[in-house]
Amino acid sequence: MKIAVDAMGGDNAPAVVIEGVERARDRFKDIEFDLFGDPKQVRPLIKDATRINLIETTEMIEMGEEPVRAIRKKKDSSIVRAAVAVKEGQADAFFSAGNTGAILAAGLFIVGRIKGIDRPGLTSILPIAKPGSGAKNFVYLDSGANAESKERNLLQFAQLGRFYAENVLGVNNPRIALLNNGTEEDKGDRLHKEVHQQLKAQRDLNFVGNVEASALLAGEADVIVSDGWTANAALKATEGTAKMMLTLIKNGIENGGLRAKLGYLFLKPVFKKIAKLMGTSTYGGAVLLGLKAPVVKTHGSADALAVENTIAQIYTMIESKVIEKTVSYFGQVQSEENIDKPSKN
Amino acid sequence: MKIAVDAMGGDNAPAVVIEGVERARDRFKDIEFDLFGDPKQVRPLIKDATRINLIETTEMIEMGEEPVRAIRKKKDSSIVRAAVAVKEGQADAFFSAGNTGAILAAGLFIVGRIKGIDRPGLTSILPIAKPGSGAKNFVYLDSGANAESKERNLLQFAQLGRFYAENVLGVNNPRIALLNNGTEEDKGDRLHKEVHQQLKAQRDLNFVGNVEASALLAGEADVIVSDGWTANAALKATEGTAKMMLTLIKNGIENGGLRAKLGYLFLKPVFKKIAKLMGTSTYGGAVLLGLKAPVVKTHGSADALAVENTIAQIYTMIESKVIEKTVSYFGQVQSEENIDKPSKN
Repeated sequence: MKIAVDAMGGDNAPAVVIEGVERARDRFKDIEFDLFGDPKQVRPLIKDATRINLIETTEMIEMGEEPVRAIRKKKDSSIVRAAVAVKEGQADAFFSAGNTGAILAAGLFIVGRIKGIDRPGLTSILPIAKPGSGAKNFVYLDSGANAESKERNLLQFAQLGRFYAENVLGVNNPRIALLNNGTEEDKGDRLHKEVHQQLKAQRDLNFVGNVEASALLAGEADVIVSDGWTANAALKATEGTAKMMLTLIKNGIENGGLRAKLGYLFLKPVFKKIAKLMGTSTYGGAVLLGLKAPVVKTHGSADALAVENTIAQIYTMIESKVIEKTVSYFGQVQSEENIDKPSKN
Repeated sequence: MKIAVDAMGGDNAPAVVIEGVERARDRFKDIEFDLFGDPKQVRPLIKDATRINLIETTEMIEMGEEPVRAIRKKKDSSIVRAAVAVKEGQADAFFSAGNTGAILAAGLFIVGRIKGIDRPGLTSILPIAKPGSGAKNFVYLDSGANAESKERNLLQFAQLGRFYAENVLGVNNPRIALLNNGTEEDKGDRLHKEVHQQLKAQRDLNFVGNVEASALLAGEADVIVSDGWTANAALKATEGTAKMMLTLIKNGIENGGLRAKLGYLFLKPVFKKIAKLMGTSTYGGAVLLGLKAPVVKTHGSADALAVENTIAQIYTMIESKVIEKTVSYFGQVQSEENIDKPSKN
């Protein structure tokens, strides 16, 4: 299998991208990489070029650029070229740590949607942080690709999440929940009430009801589905609060004198475990689900470990044939419905 | 001044309500209380009846009841009777730890809206948890009274929040921010983009731009305005994550052997300070702003301290004449606009 890598994206690119790619290359003997970037910057950083092909690009999409305009204008950027390689079948998946909007736009407009999917959903793999819970992580979408979602989008997200949980996380009959402002089924605005009823009616979904944002990481479901707006707010609040709590503790230790510093030494293993659990390097990247190939982004501040883990995640996506299975499912749904859905972007 | 108290609302009512009321009575020599409840349960718990009038009610609205139906049917419930006392001018403010929906409904339909306010906003006073930040807390609305909000609602929330921050928190020229999915002014769905522009155009508002949910408690503004849906999700995620982090630490300590237990002893003051900062007893209750009198609820699991602090908050609301000033402002805006706004619920 071959993965097209945007070598230029991310705060510490290309160095950490290349380091992560080399680590993944050593770990998975059957992955080959096409590395898109500026040879002057990239080549000197490659320690061992085994199964790494460097492909020259002359442009770069910066972090702050307007995404759609950027991918239209910068045809020779590392993001656009890597996405085109996937579209043309020269690579099986796309990886980047760059401009999120540009990656989403390249995925949507270049790699393209699965037939039957109106809008892809940005999918985060999040930790379950309840001590004693069986599962380790869960699938969360749409964590922000769409500011406004409709009922059919959320139903499709549920199916996309189910296929991911089954095939990539290896969960049997994954529990699907809807993020809502209350656990009772009559809670929410019109959209969420209606989506709740429709999810409940889907025979092939193991729908377990609503989950509130306060229980996001509590392990109540294997897939939590939401409109992009709400999911984005809840995810940011969760990440921000976890970080803030650690900062408050750090600050308390720094200002707590010798006693607090001793306490920190004794509790260090506990804090380290929590920081690892809540850390962003552990679970891989965010997947734009609903596209014809894996399009995966890791955060801009990713280190080499995060890059390596994200490539491991892409490896499992390809190996498990999750996308082929998703395509086949939606193809069947479409032919059963016998409806020609209009193309919507 | 006189405060109408629902003695029967809350998980530990009437005991903690009465204990809190007595503490507040001892603290503020000019407050008189009308305590609405079942005399058989309430009277034996009153230690000292100074400035406490017990008013008999025969019904009670339970925590799970459908709010609007409950306030229509249970005319002799403690919530309805206390709200009617405020409406009829026998009391200056309403307090309850009971069924949130019923309190909101009683506020809206019995106490009534300020002229010019289309919808009241549920307002939480939240802690600022960034070490070294000047301010201690901020005003957050609408934290969940309305599942769907329109532009004019959010603009009114901003003004309601401004008056509260100025008068009750004593903040000079409070900074107003909009909760949004990005800090740039072009971020968000149509509603949030439009609200951003309108807030910016308001000459009497010190609008400082967008705040993301990740920075909710970071002290970037004195008032954070949001539609009820998003604010509710972000608040629940924040509260849930803070609680979860403390649980993870507790669990790590319990399973970390002697070393971790020693560490906990040394760090106890740090954890206590953080638990207090993030605790719900410190900042008083949630205010339904936009009504003709203070209608304030504290959470169902409130202890006597939370009841006392919430009454202190009501005291400041009455003393500062925040509602009179808000009424006068919206009256003026209305006469300037010279528009007869239709009544909307």
